[in-house]
Amino acid sequence: MTELAKQSKGASRELAKLTTAEKNACLLAMAEALEGNSQSIKDANAKDMAAGTQSGLSSAMLDRLKLDDKRITGMAKGLREVAALPDPVGRILDERTRPNGLKLQKISTPIGVVVIIYESRPNVTADAASLCFKSGNATILRGGKEAIHSNQAIAQVMISAAKQRLPNFPEHAIQVVQTTEREAIKELLSLTQYVDLCMPRGGEGLIRAVAESSKVPVIKHYKGVCHVYVDADADVKMAEDIIINGKCQRPGVCNAIETLLVDKAIAPTFLPVMAQKLAENKVELRVDGVSQNILGSQIPNVKPATEEDWYAEYLELILAVRVVNGVKEAIDHINHYGSAHSDSIVTRNEKRAKQFLSEVDSATVYWNASTRFTDGGEFGMGAEIGISTDKIGARGPMGLEELTTYKWVGIGNGQVRV
Amino acid sequence: MTELAKQSKGASRELAKLTTAEKNACLLAMAEALEGNSQSIKDANAKDMAAGTQSGLSSAMLDRLKLDDKRITGMAKGLREVAALPDPVGRILDERTRPNGLKLQKISTPIGVVVIIYESRPNVTADAASLCFKSGNATILRGGKEAIHSNQAIAQVMISAAKQRLPNFPEHAIQVVQTTEREAIKELLSLTQYVDLCMPRGGEGLIRAVAESSKVPVIKHYKGVCHVYVDADADVKMAEDIIINGKCQRPGVCNAIETLLVDKAIAPTFLPVMAQKLAENKVELRVDGVSQNILGSQIPNVKPATEEDWYAEYLELILAVRVVNGVKEAIDHINHYGSAHSDSIVTRNEKRAKQFLSEVDSATVYWNASTRFTDGGEFGMGAEIGISTDKIGARGPMGLEELTTYKWVGIGNGQVRV
Repeated sequence: MTELAKQSKGASRELAKLTTAEKNACLLAMAEALEGNSQSIKDANAKDMAAGTQSGLSSAMLDRLKLDDKRITGMAKGLREVAALPDPVGRILDERTRPNGLKLQKISTPIGVVVIIYESRPNVTADAASLCFKSGNATILRGGKEAIHSNQAIAQVMISAAKQRLPNFPEHAIQVVQTTEREAIKELLSLTQYVDLCMPRGGEGLIRAVAESSKVPVIKHYKGVCHVYVDADADVKMAEDIIINGKCQRPGVCNAIETLLVDKAIAPTFLPVMAQKLAENKVELRVDGVSQNILGSQIPNVKPATEEDWYAEYLELILAVRVVNGVKEAIDHINHYGSAHSDSIVTRNEKRAKQFLSEVDSATVYWNASTRFTDGGEFGMGAEIGISTDKIGARGPMGLEELTTYKWVGIGNGQVRV
Repeated sequence: MTELAKQSKGASRELAKLTTAEKNACLLAMAEALEGNSQSIKDANAKDMAAGTQSGLSSAMLDRLKLDDKRITGMAKGLREVAALPDPVGRILDERTRPNGLKLQKISTPIGVVVIIYESRPNVTADAASLCFKSGNATILRGGKEAIHSNQAIAQVMISAAKQRLPNFPEHAIQVVQTTEREAIKELLSLTQYVDLCMPRGGEGLIRAVAESSKVPVIKHYKGVCHVYVDADADVKMAEDIIINGKCQRPGVCNAIETLLVDKAIAPTFLPVMAQKLAENKVELRVDGVSQNILGSQIPNVKPATEEDWYAEYLELILAVRVVNGVKEAIDHINHYGSAHSDSIVTRNEKRAKQFLSEVDSATVYWNASTRFTDGGEFGMGAEIGISTDKIGARGPMGLEELTTYKWVGIGNGQVRV
């Protein structure tokens, strides 16, 4: 592991020297090679699929693991999109000239060596490696053990293509960890002299285990327990649309909503209509006592909520519902039970909206919009490597810029400190 | 510890609601109170001084511990300066309107709860608490056990003054940890649900111990092994000034230089003159073989360097000296042995300067200027809570802005994702 990490560090120094044009040429060559070598990638994937079938992976897992021409073309398309994005390195973030004439510039730079730990989907290999490469970072990829042949094949095709296109491409810029031993990963994440950042992607258990044991800084994306709060002055039709979109459009993703909070002033009229619409969309409700009283037994699929429901990330067609006494109680609920991911208020009242936007301590807060917009693509970042629920380093959707750090450059003509 | 951390989290929510004017009024009241209560602060300090004398603290340690009227006035002056600085919260860092009309703003916010761990000097209590307060963060202060009465007295005076000035001042916004047990600190730094950041200030051992055991993100300021590289095309007089300033003006600080690298093309003429000037300034040299051959025995206080010297942060009048074969070797030396703090090239050659500035992977890099400028005040930040050698979160000098994070605010009129 030490040797691998050291090679990545060396590669990161070389990567930082590549021009934007060189990086883009490599990305385009990689995209072409993925399509041109689709058969060898599918062959490698077949080994993983066979092993997965034998070891009894669920059909959902096998589906995530499978690579076909459409998915390989999808990866290639992703690489071309990354090539088309602006280079995040070398941006001047701040500039000042001191009274003594010293000119200071704060300039974005690559972070260095980034470890990405992820689960079954092999297309993450191409996505993560390309975003890190474009931002000048060396990547160490540690995918799920069930996808190891696929991941290795994808990375090899990308590296070979880049080397052919660019003789000075540092071959250790993208490395796939061969072992899946936990101890080896722990060792990798103790090498603070070589590894600069770890980004685990996957279930909460994986992320928590990595964060607990890593000596390297970790940017975490824990669960998304997202809320919509329907204020007394909400546009009711708008609230319905935002809730149905948040819960039903794609329930399995982190920016889907898990809890609905309703102001008690509007609950008696709003909740029955909303619950009916949710029932039509096959959503099960887990409701507090006040909601239960309002809804009575007229709506199917309504169960009493327990304390655990307020913390739950269902990722399916289940929604917790609570009646609250105004915006302050809604804010307190979200800050206590939420996961600081994405939360929305629906209201016409500007004062309460501003209070919500200011006091909800989440990465992304919305006024009259769906939480589903928390996404690199929707934010105009072009691509996304994850959504951070941390506060140190990047927060919210992470695109290319969020994969950079900065340095201060001081240019003088002999200044010394007096 | 859990209760204390929870109180801090609660206070941080209240702090975030204070206006700039309210925060500044509190800071000015705190400053006045420190001066008005100087006797009680000195009384508390006398207890620490007595205990320190009895336990055999060195005279240097006792000097750092001592509070007199001048030092108390100094703390008050610091608070007034922080009050005069712009509020770092609420800055719009980015703004975009998406094609669907959703308006996105990236806005700076407080981080939340910040733990500061520091050693003997009690004035850090006032400095750190005021910077965190102005940036809207609740602070948990854990100073050295030898300064516990002084730290407690300073914090109490500040809190009382703020409460008197502002009835809604959250009293737990500034807390001093009473215990100095290592286990208690470890527990505090495991409470990721309440504590957002830890900044250890002090010796490398302290920082490393905190970083190793903390579950909370840590922004580290390890040692400053800073370099000056004298290129073949250097202005020799300028190089001399920058080296003398870097080594001799204040050798005990992290932005002082520890290693001098000299291009072999200029070494035979430059080194003897430079070594003579350093000798006049009572600087001991630890030199490599090539330098030794050039210098011969004409300069006093010259010893052969060992491998350890290249890693050393002397913090005194000692300078390691090495002759290198051009800018690439200088860069490689710095990236290998340095601490990524501050490094400078002296040259008239723009191409080599740009290579150095780009490829030296340090928080601050200089061209023809002293490394001693790496400082919040010198950078125009107005104040400084530390200098980060990390890459995630802040890098380089940390002022008020570096004590903030950000959130994304999305304002719509009913947008849902399609």
